[in-house]
This record gives sequence, structure tokens and C-alpha cells, in this order.
Amino acid sequence: VSRDVVSPLVTLGEGGTSLVQSRAIGPRLGVPELWFKLEHLNPTGSFKDRFAAAEVSRLRAAGVSLCLATSSGNTGSALATYCARAGLGCAIFLTEQTPAGKLTQMLAHGATLHRVRGFGASAADSARAFAELARVAARPGAALVVSAYAYCPDAMDGLKTIAYELALQLPPAQPADVFVPIGGGGLCTAIARGFADLASAGRQPGQTRVHGVQPTGNDTVVTAWRRGERVARTAESATQISGLAVPTDIDATRALTSIRETGGSGVLVDDAEVWDAQRELARTEGLYVEPAGAASVAGLARAVQEGFRPAGPVVCLLTGAGFKDPLAAERLAAGATADLIDMADIERVVEQGLAGEGSSTAH
Amino acid sequence: VSRDVVSPLVTLGEGGTSLVQSRAIGPRLGVPELWFKLEHLNPTGSFKDRFAAAEVSRLRAAGVSLCLATSSGNTGSALATYCARAGLGCAIFLTEQTPAGKLTQMLAHGATLHRVRGFGASAADSARAFAELARVAARPGAALVVSAYAYCPDAMDGLKTIAYELALQLPPAQPADVFVPIGGGGLCTAIARGFADLASAGRQPGQTRVHGVQPTGNDTVVTAWRRGERVARTAESATQISGLAVPTDIDATRALTSIRETGGSGVLVDDAEVWDAQRELARTEGLYVEPAGAASVAGLARAVQEGFRPAGPVVCLLTGAGFKDPLAAERLAAGATADLIDMADIERVVEQGLAGEGSSTAH
Repeated sequence: VSRDVVSPLVTLGEGGTSLVQSRAIGPRLGVPELWFKLEHLNPTGSFKDRFAAAEVSRLRAAGVSLCLATSSGNTGSALATYCARAGLGCAIFLTEQTPAGKLTQMLAHGATLHRVRGFGASAADSARAFAELARVAARPGAALVVSAYAYCPDAMDGLKTIAYELALQLPPAQPADVFVPIGGGGLCTAIARGFADLASAGRQPGQTRVHGVQPTGNDTVVTAWRRGERVARTAESATQISGLAVPTDIDATRALTSIRETGGSGVLVDDAEVWDAQRELARTEGLYVEPAGAASVAGLARAVQEGFRPAGPVVCLLTGAGFKDPLAAERLAAGATADLIDMADIERVVEQGLAGEGSSTAH
Repeated sequence: VSRDVVSPLVTLGEGGTSLVQSRAIGPRLGVPELWFKLEHLNPTGSFKDRFAAAEVSRLRAAGVSLCLATSSGNTGSALATYCARAGLGCAIFLTEQTPAGKLTQMLAHGATLHRVRGFGASAADSARAFAELARVAARPGAALVVSAYAYCPDAMDGLKTIAYELALQLPPAQPADVFVPIGGGGLCTAIARGFADLASAGRQPGQTRVHGVQPTGNDTVVTAWRRGERVARTAESATQISGLAVPTDIDATRALTSIRETGGSGVLVDDAEVWDAQRELARTEGLYVEPAGAASVAGLARAVQEGFRPAGPVVCLLTGAGFKDPLAAERLAAGATADLIDMADIERVVEQGLAGEGSSTAH
């Protein structure tokens, strides 16, 4: 933070996230050097802040006064936040069925939210809504922002900073393998591009493989990768993992290409494996993430089952915070709650705790 | 992060929080150099992580296997998290009336929670519960942890790092004034001690005044400060600001002394002023904090009304994240929600947005 320069950047201190070593999951999986990149600890609770900081900085410099967006998830929260920080308006257009529980953070920052009749109901209707937004966004002062290379490639390149940081945080080696959740797919490409930049600059001693993880219920990339196809598929999304249900090819073909070019792989995981990984991260690592934020760990576990053996340090990106999905957070507690005891019972429950019963390590 | 040393510290990357300059509130108040210290962006969403990292590191080094705690708030969440990280058990004893909504984060990390009959009902009953906990915590392997100088002074000194960071982040000046919320009171003392350390080391060119902010409904320190008293008062707590309702003198007399020694002041604010500050931070600064996290800003606004004039940079500590208090977060939206529109309405709502109607800057 400098007091001498009026920065043109809109920033809340995003990026520079911690890398912490696994205490329990890595040893259990036989991956001795497993690291977690804590992207869920960005200012608004997800890696999208790196994108939003870059894009809203660009919008403000360009004289835009109203940001139009279509995300009810982490991108929407990030844009609402950074627009408030920059003094820009933010209007977010949502599918007709968007649940109200996800909107609190956006509303708190003063964004205006609109559910659009038909948006999300069919591919054709959604395309019509996007076309209308793109048309209206051409007006002076407005801009449509979507966190994908297909729409906002410059700001998406802001995500390459994750790779740069990993190279600084893991000297002398690069990570051998990075596991990345696939939503739209752009994050895989940004990570691959970041390591490619380092290689071009002669700063990367080895090749880092990028592995993309998807729920079985949204298989746009993985089967295509396995079969050597060059174009991602479209899916009928059947996953419940919020943020990873992206059935159309926005950046999915880019992700497919990036995975192949780095020598990585595609991994499919069931929703239940994602929830298990979320639970294990909270209980044994002290890391509180939303389900999508745990997908990379579920993917690593599945890859190990299927024969993956690490050649060096492995990094899983944890992308979104636990508070983002309150229903999933309550499921983490798994029916546990506070019992009601008498003061005379304190001694008994402490003895049970000392015996390891009911403690976080006893599960 | 070093790969060569097995650290005895239990860490999730707490501390090193950003300092961002005010865009809107400072200019409105006539405080040109107003800065926010983003303590709510610590790993579990509050400044208590600095305390928990220090204390849980100490417990693990001492061979403790079960941490006993009494907080249903940010300390409890921080301890549950760092205990999970360290592989320690964590048992949290709560007042009989603790609302279930605050417990999700602790349960997610596998802490066991116990509501104790009578605890919190009266001062005498609470003292009895504390005495029983202290007695049982003397067993080998157990330890009672309370985030106060009165109980855990070494780990409380972990909070001095906030002052050290401010000195690094605001060169060449120190902050002239720091506004700090008073819960138990220890944070005021830690900040004052941190700046005193810098002065002893010849590193502090000026005196930083520490100002303590309390809700009118929990006036243990402020009236005592105004009247020149040497001992904090006890209160019948009537504030709704979660985290600042601490009616007894835990570290309150320490806070009173620290405020006086630094030449600072005590400031009382109504709950409504705290909620207004919370709303203004979210809408105009992009900063999403819980009500207690906005108390320092409400205190600065009140101090300016009462004649306070800054002599240099002013820092407000934002102590806890917006997601910590879901009910307060919903109130931030103030009845706003997503309306339902037709695709043909998109053009109209964008025009309204460009005209500044309904945008975050129009409020």
C-alpha cells in the first residue's frame, strides 16, 4: 500500500493467497507433498476476485458507469463488491429460478438484481437473453461482464497470477501437478497460461500438469479428453455442486486444450465424493470451503484411486469459501448440534473429549 | 511458506491483512486520510485468528489434546478451526440460550458443543460454570482458552502484530489515531502495547492514540474514561451488537488504562449507528463486515460529530466478516430483492441503471 500514488486499480487486497501443506489428507492418499492454495480466502470468498479486480479496474478507466452481469454465484458477488468499491453501478440478471438465499452478499453491496422470465429455461431462451444483454451493453457507459475467456479474456488472464504465486511459493521446484475445478473452464486455461509464461521467461524448471476436475453430472470436458476429442461436449447438467453446473461450452474447449497441452488429465467425481472432500477438509485440515471449493481434492483422491502417482509437489486449488453455500455448510455438521448439559456434567464431557470421543479427530 | 522447515506453528496464513484507503466515508466525514484495516479477511473471518494461531500452537507444543472454550462467536470459530488444523480436540461450552444459527462454522470443523444449564442466566451461575471449567481444565491434556489478557496473555499479545503491520503499511507516518471496538477490551490493550513496543525500539516517530468504541448498551469503559475513573464498570448489557455485549470486567479496566495512556478516547454509539456504518461500508466501500466489525467506523463518525479532528492518518479496524451474522446481513439488503422481469424489460432496467436509479451509488 503506497500513500504517494493514486492507484488506477480497484483493489481490496485480492491475490497473494496462502499455500498450506496438507496435514492429514496427503498422508492418507500417499501424496507426501500435497499443498492447498487458499483461493477461498480472497476478499469476497473466491478466486473470482482476481478477475473482478482486473475487470472493474478496466471498466472504471474506460469510463463505464454500469456493469451488467449474469452470475448468481461467486462472480456476481465479486462484481457487486468491486463495483461498490469503485463507485460503479452493478445490475445482475439472473435465471428465473435463482434461489433467494444466494443473493444476500450481492444485495448487501447495493447491486440491483433482476430475475428474467425464461432465462435458464432452455438453451434458446438463454441465448436470447444473452443476445439482448449484449445488445444493450453496447450503450455508452454500460458493459457486459462474464468471467470467461470467451467474453473478457484480459481480466481472465488476471487468474494467471495464481500460477506465478505457486512458482514463488514452492521453490526450488514448480508444482508437478495442479488440480483445478472446471466450472466454465477458464481457470484451467489461465493456470496453464501462467506456467507457460514462466517457461517462456526461463523461470520454470519443469512442466506442471494441469488436471481438470468435473462432477459426473456435468461432463463437458473429461470424456472428450479421454477419447482424444478436440471439442468439448454439451451436457444435461445433473450435478448439485453449485458453480460447476455449466452445461454449455463457454471455455470448456479451451480447458480441454490446456489439459492436453500440459500433459494433465480430466477427472470425474460424483457429488458425494465432493461433499466428502469438503467434510474432510473442514474436519482434518481446518479449511472451510464450499463444495465446488473441494472438488479439486475429490479429484485428486479419485485420480490416486485410478493410478495417479505424483512426481513432485501436488497443489489443489480451493476456490470458494464455506459460507458461500449455507445449506451445504449445515450438511457438514451432519446432524451434530449443541447438547444441553448440567454443570455437573462438564467433568464427564471433558473426560470423554480427552478419551478422543466426539472430538474432531475421532471421526 | 518454507518447505525445508517443519514449523511448530499452527497457521492458516492469518495476519498480514490489507490496509485500504476510504473512498467515500473519509471524504464525507472530513477525514482525508482514512484507512481500513481488513481484519475481517483473516482465514476464519475475524481478527481472533491471530490469537487462535498463537494459542493453539502453544497448546500443541505443550502436549495438550483437548481445548476447552466458552465462545459462541468469533473466538469459538477460530479455535475450532485451528484445533482441526492442529489435530486437537475442541469442546465449546455455551450459554443455555445460544442461538443455533451461530454454530455452523464450529460444527463444520468437528468441535463438540455443549449448552450448559444456567450458564449465562446470572453472574453467579456463570462464575460457577467458569470455575468448574477451570477446575476440570487442570487435568493433563486439557486447557481452557479465553481470548482475554485475564486468561491467555501470551496469545493476546499476538494481536500486537496489527500495530506492527500498521507501522509498516503507513510509512513514513504512524497512524495518528486508531479506532478499535471494545468487546472484552483486550484488543485496545494489544494495539496500545504494539505501538509502545515500536516506541521502545525507536521505531515510532509519533504517538498513536487508541480510541475505544462501545455500544451505549454496554458502557463498561466509556463513561468511566470520561469521568477519570481508574476501574471499568459492569453493565446490564442491552446492545444487540453480537460480540460487543460483554457486561463484566474481563479486560475492560485494561482497555480503560490503554486508552488513557495513549491519549485516546472512549466513544459510545447506538446500535443503529453501527448498522448504518455496516451498510455504508458495504454500499460505498465494497467492505462486507458484521455489525461489530463496523463499530470502529460508527465510533469515528460519532467522534467527528463531537469535535474530533484528525492530526494525520486515521485507521479503523474492521474486525469481523459479514457472513458471521446472517440475520444482520439480510437486514443490509433492506428489503431489496430480485424483481421478475421479461426479456423485453432488460433495456428499460439498464437505462434506469445508467441514469443512476437503483444502483449502488444512488443510495
